[in-house]
Amino acid sequence: MSDRLGTPLEQPLFDQLTLIGVGLIGSSLARVARRQNLAKKIVAVDSSDGARKRIAELHLADDVTGDYAEGVRTADCVILCVPVGACSTVAEKIAPALKHGVILSDVGSVKGAIVSQVEPHLPNYVHFVPAHPVAGTEQSGPDAGFATLFNNRWCILTPPDGTDKDAIAKLRQFWEGVGSNVEEMSPAHHDLVLAITSHLPHLIAYNIVGTAADLEAVTQSEVIKFSAGGFRDFTRIAASDPTMWRDVFLNNKEAVLEMLGRFTEDLSALQRAIRWGDGEALFDHFTRTRAIRRSIIEIGQDSATPDFGRQTKDGPD
Amino acid sequence: MSDRLGTPLEQPLFDQLTLIGVGLIGSSLARVARRQNLAKKIVAVDSSDGARKRIAELHLADDVTGDYAEGVRTADCVILCVPVGACSTVAEKIAPALKHGVILSDVGSVKGAIVSQVEPHLPNYVHFVPAHPVAGTEQSGPDAGFATLFNNRWCILTPPDGTDKDAIAKLRQFWEGVGSNVEEMSPAHHDLVLAITSHLPHLIAYNIVGTAADLEAVTQSEVIKFSAGGFRDFTRIAASDPTMWRDVFLNNKEAVLEMLGRFTEDLSALQRAIRWGDGEALFDHFTRTRAIRRSIIEIGQDSATPDFGRQTKDGPD
Repeated sequence: MSDRLGTPLEQPLFDQLTLIGVGLIGSSLARVARRQNLAKKIVAVDSSDGARKRIAELHLADDVTGDYAEGVRTADCVILCVPVGACSTVAEKIAPALKHGVILSDVGSVKGAIVSQVEPHLPNYVHFVPAHPVAGTEQSGPDAGFATLFNNRWCILTPPDGTDKDAIAKLRQFWEGVGSNVEEMSPAHHDLVLAITSHLPHLIAYNIVGTAADLEAVTQSEVIKFSAGGFRDFTRIAASDPTMWRDVFLNNKEAVLEMLGRFTEDLSALQRAIRWGDGEALFDHFTRTRAIRRSIIEIGQDSATPDFGRQTKDGPD
Repeated sequence: MSDRLGTPLEQPLFDQLTLIGVGLIGSSLARVARRQNLAKKIVAVDSSDGARKRIAELHLADDVTGDYAEGVRTADCVILCVPVGACSTVAEKIAPALKHGVILSDVGSVKGAIVSQVEPHLPNYVHFVPAHPVAGTEQSGPDAGFATLFNNRWCILTPPDGTDKDAIAKLRQFWEGVGSNVEEMSPAHHDLVLAITSHLPHLIAYNIVGTAADLEAVTQSEVIKFSAGGFRDFTRIAASDPTMWRDVFLNNKEAVLEMLGRFTEDLSALQRAIRWGDGEALFDHFTRTRAIRRSIIEIGQDSATPDFGRQTKDGPD
């Protein structure tokens, strides 16, 4: 996989970058922004005492504060790294303190709802460029972040019509600076693409882990012991942050329900093939899904190394 | 994770171990059996010319043959490593050539159907001890195997009532010798446990990858590019061997349909929570699935290292 993180910039892109919310994504941005010299000064804003303490201990920012207005007042770029459901409230809080010409962005997994909820609060001298880095792990919090999280991952910008071109270009430079490939699309199309590539997979993973937990004929300890047969991978996805995912489903309802409808329809067809013993239909279905896997590996979005839930030291010899 | 592969045995367990079918599982058994000195002689039987050639090139066995009777005649342990659907035919072919007191086993992911299909072909002087190592990767073929595949994984023995105790004990020693933890249960219970921990996860993964491939509003290339949001992990599971999985679903129909029914019921409840904007129900569901993940990591069936589809060199710093 190619490393897109080059040498640090000689001139920082921003004088002050303010990150609001310093969990997995926010703390990763803080780490890589400093390493690549993307901002002269990094300010972290977090409403949690515990998080602020940890941010200070980890030296993730030049300033740490719980005061939103204070944190954004002198920033020329502000990125909301809070759950989707909190964006509107935070936008309302910071709006009066934002300076003229500031770039405001976010990292939410849903874009249509963010645009409609955040934009009404903003003065017209604020350039709002919503963004979504398609990167992450199942862990959360300031300790979970790392500087290479965005390296060779995609970041999708969804600027509403009429957004200032220079602001878009500057934010694109920032995301390229943290190692990402950048693509632009409309908020609505983003929400449809992510509904199938991210939201539905999470919903299904959460669901099957719940189903397994409720069985009477199979004990919890058996489910855990024999999880290496496939179930294990679903539990990893289902260990993701509950608040973040609740907000995703509440805010991308239409697209998720549309994809879920198709999924259920297709599952009924497979169910019927199993009930009627139609081996040919099963075989054909199981064969055509292989091509997509190959393409994902080819473009470097996953590794071809077989995964069996352990680290390399125990791997193929 | 503890390493259960100790020093090689001083005295081999078997004089001749014959492996029928040398794909991922068969070739891994060949490798570890030799490394741990579990058999004086290892014979590989495979009906495919290409596989036999590759087995010879990789020096996986002392003898390689395409003649089933020839391959098993002097064996004191024979393990069928072919897809579930082929076990009955192979059993019929080898039955007349099996010697008195031989242990016959298999590695199929379904046990009830194997017992009912294989047993009728066997003379009463053959000890049939069905087994299922819950281990594997998404890859197939003799090149995909490796000696540590079974290390610290579970192997489930499902001996029918009245099976010779010494034969069971010997096969247990063999699986412990390849690094596995061994558990015994009835074929029917095995099929129920695996339906939820392995068969249903595979069905769902195959299904969602198919759903994604059929969309009109989202292009194939978008699905591939933005797969890092969760979809990627499903494509890995859906890259598993189509023949093996067709046979699993054809031969564990009842248990899979039962688990699928529960899964669909639960999914409808989540769907309803999304449609009605019931954030509390979603949050509660997403929270309780975390405990199962923790237990899987605690007993060493997966690593706690966050997975983001890349190898350690690019990992958290």
